[in-house]
Amino acid sequence: MSDIVTAAMIVIGDEILSGRTKDRNIGHLADVMTAIGIDLKEVRIVPDEEDEIVAAVNALRARYGYVFTTGGIGPTHDDITADAISKAFGVPCAYDDKALALLGDSYAKRGIEFNDARKRMARMPVGATHIDNPVSIAPGFRIGNVHVMAGVPSIFQAMLDNVVPTLRTGTRLLSATIPCPHGEGIIGGPLSEIQKAHPDTIIGSYPKYLDGSFHTELVVRARSQEALDAARKAVADMVAALPPR
Amino acid sequence: MSDIVTAAMIVIGDEILSGRTKDRNIGHLADVMTAIGIDLKEVRIVPDEEDEIVAAVNALRARYGYVFTTGGIGPTHDDITADAISKAFGVPCAYDDKALALLGDSYAKRGIEFNDARKRMARMPVGATHIDNPVSIAPGFRIGNVHVMAGVPSIFQAMLDNVVPTLRTGTRLLSATIPCPHGEGIIGGPLSEIQKAHPDTIIGSYPKYLDGSFHTELVVRARSQEALDAARKAVADMVAALPPR
Repeated sequence: MSDIVTAAMIVIGDEILSGRTKDRNIGHLADVMTAIGIDLKEVRIVPDEEDEIVAAVNALRARYGYVFTTGGIGPTHDDITADAISKAFGVPCAYDDKALALLGDSYAKRGIEFNDARKRMARMPVGATHIDNPVSIAPGFRIGNVHVMAGVPSIFQAMLDNVVPTLRTGTRLLSATIPCPHGEGIIGGPLSEIQKAHPDTIIGSYPKYLDGSFHTELVVRARSQEALDAARKAVADMVAALPPR
Repeated sequence: MSDIVTAAMIVIGDEILSGRTKDRNIGHLADVMTAIGIDLKEVRIVPDEEDEIVAAVNALRARYGYVFTTGGIGPTHDDITADAISKAFGVPCAYDDKALALLGDSYAKRGIEFNDARKRMARMPVGATHIDNPVSIAPGFRIGNVHVMAGVPSIFQAMLDNVVPTLRTGTRLLSATIPCPHGEGIIGGPLSEIQKAHPDTIIGSYPKYLDGSFHTELVVRARSQEALDAARKAVADMVAALPPR
């Protein structure tokens, strides 16, 4: 029996929706989830608007095993993620003593004033636990199945490294890639038959358009090695039987 | 009075959620929408599962002025976007005569068999109109306010170029960027005051972590030049008054 654990991601930030900043966190989370055996099932990018964040968090945390958010936990007025997550969980957003101490110590050591803006980074939903931030101290947090992390990629990646060991993981989805020097039009029919004959696998076809002609990468995914191997052989045999290009 | 036109995007494909393919279309659509004065308000990445696609399409087409989808319109069995969009609109998915003729001619000219897999690319919701594909012929389509396009970036971009002139656009959101050689902690307080004093603008703060210290880009956005200029001056004056680093 395979054990399936699911996840969703919420990317929070007007700057992604305006094109000003190009997201680099979705692909990273997707890679990490696949590597550890969690199925990322949905991603939403939402603006810096409380109602939108609350709606996305509540829709996705009810539906998937884990939710990961990025963005909106800095010290400026447009960082509203802590408030929105608190509202989604129906708990107050308050200064966390441990986070205040952590940040206070860090600023004191560097001779930097621990002003109100910086104190904002110690606010989180009551009952949340910290996600350590080895890069710039200000912690992310976890409440329920929701993990709230920074949007700056280097900090997001470091926080995620700290989260991964705490996650329950499922049976890894194994995959095999078969390159095909033809476009999808010639393989569509036989590939569909192979998918039908191997219902325990997911067979994907990914076209690449290069130098005026199509190539395809055929990807077989399965949770058991036996199912994977059988479908991989069927796909490879099909590709080998095609006329040379 | 400013005129606001909104849009959402749906990226369809297991390969994005697994990390196998890194999306390159979200950032491009975001850039184009911003350039022409349409506010991209939400993006969802969903798997190759009909119910998920239908739910996303119906949620977003009711809420936003335009919806743009990418992915799932090729000739293979995992390309189910045309069926899902038809289901979302409650209309049959059928072979389109004009698309059959277009594709049939193109394959005939190249001496390539117009087989069942290739014919799949002529299926679309009854009542849809074509989005021309100058790269590889097989058209995208538009039904209602939903524009269905290819996932291969070069084809997506070419299709979008054909869609843009047909869109109603709003008042462009103007923007100005003020670089700041400090982290957010020092500017958070004054920036929040500037935002309060300039309610017709959206002021964003985007930290960059480089070589062990934070820099910030402050971005003012507004629909009128006057509002933009006033807030830009306030932000620039605030940055200029900070102690040198």
